[in-house]
Amino acid sequence: MTIRLHCFGESGHSYKVALALELGGLDWEPVKIDFFSGETRGDAYRGTLNEMGEAPVLIDGDLTLTQSGVILDYLSEKTSKFGGRDAAERREILRWVLWDNHKLSSQAGVTRFLMNFLPAEKRSGDVIGFMQSRLAGVYPVLEGHLEGRDWIVGDGLTNADLSCCSYLYYPEPFGFERADWPNIDRWLGRISETPGWKPPYELMPGSPADRA
Amino acid sequence: MTIRLHCFGESGHSYKVALALELGGLDWEPVKIDFFSGETRGDAYRGTLNEMGEAPVLIDGDLTLTQSGVILDYLSEKTSKFGGRDAAERREILRWVLWDNHKLSSQAGVTRFLMNFLPAEKRSGDVIGFMQSRLAGVYPVLEGHLEGRDWIVGDGLTNADLSCCSYLYYPEPFGFERADWPNIDRWLGRISETPGWKPPYELMPGSPADRA
Repeated sequence: MTIRLHCFGESGHSYKVALALELGGLDWEPVKIDFFSGETRGDAYRGTLNEMGEAPVLIDGDLTLTQSGVILDYLSEKTSKFGGRDAAERREILRWVLWDNHKLSSQAGVTRFLMNFLPAEKRSGDVIGFMQSRLAGVYPVLEGHLEGRDWIVGDGLTNADLSCCSYLYYPEPFGFERADWPNIDRWLGRISETPGWKPPYELMPGSPADRA
Repeated sequence: MTIRLHCFGESGHSYKVALALELGGLDWEPVKIDFFSGETRGDAYRGTLNEMGEAPVLIDGDLTLTQSGVILDYLSEKTSKFGGRDAAERREILRWVLWDNHKLSSQAGVTRFLMNFLPAEKRSGDVIGFMQSRLAGVYPVLEGHLEGRDWIVGDGLTNADLSCCSYLYYPEPFGFERADWPNIDRWLGRISETPGWKPPYELMPGSPADRA
């Protein structure tokens, strides 16, 4: 049975899962969430798909799962890919997935939203500056960890990479420049050379071009 | 061997783990991190304890673990407590731990810091207002989930509760009022009635009183 991923192109959290599905060779199809019309904030979405009001939502037969970190873990059980080889690697992957949710994707996602998708008259320079100053402390952690390493955990692509990389591939500016972070830049290049890799707007439906 | 938890009283992420250690009946001792003198930002801390520059850090014999969600999971393996009874409960616990790291503790922790620990002259009303507006969308998710439920997952205390509850017990104001959220209020009361429960500044060394 085809796995369905409720997602939308702009959602970096969805992109993590879309990458895992695609690179894991699974039979899946995207179902577009109309985020910009408020779908995730409505009672229907919260009542049937995700009480947290977030994307993505994965449906595999009778199972409905939310939170990209949970879904990545589930897909690794299914495919035996990207989940680490032993308890120590599994813990290290979870550590980076949590760090990403807490510090990187969360703050990068919000900052990108504020700078690109929020109407200009609602933008606050103080808030954007604050978010960018928070992120300025985040990138060096990943840059330092990738010193002398090809992948975040072990010697191949794992869910740690899939979680942390996602927002860093989007074209909209939010203060991150690959050229400033050579280890991150090489690592993003390495991931995107994986056979089957596609950028977010080619892997999921919906993009800023739809609203232009 | 006594487990050591590098932590400090003001750290809600540390408090999650301290609660798990205490309520799990483990032999542990806290080691105070001097966060307010910049210890977590120094090379020594990042080089030996946690490259992410965060608290807490747990040391159990040869094993050093960071990220509260990873540590809670490890302690559940050790004690067979708070970790859920089957795969579905384990996934549901991880879902709430991720949500907490992404939406609740992360944003509550930052907002509390900005409103209470940052020097008054550095505070931005725009930034605090923005953070509080983000949190205004977070509390209803937990309030709604706890409707008709005593615990976040299953029928007893789990790591989902220990993760989500932590910042909500602190006395410093950050915009959260228990009286506004009756289900959350009753749930916090239920957790604090667990034998052995202590508030953050009684369970870990360091509190705002030290710096008064």
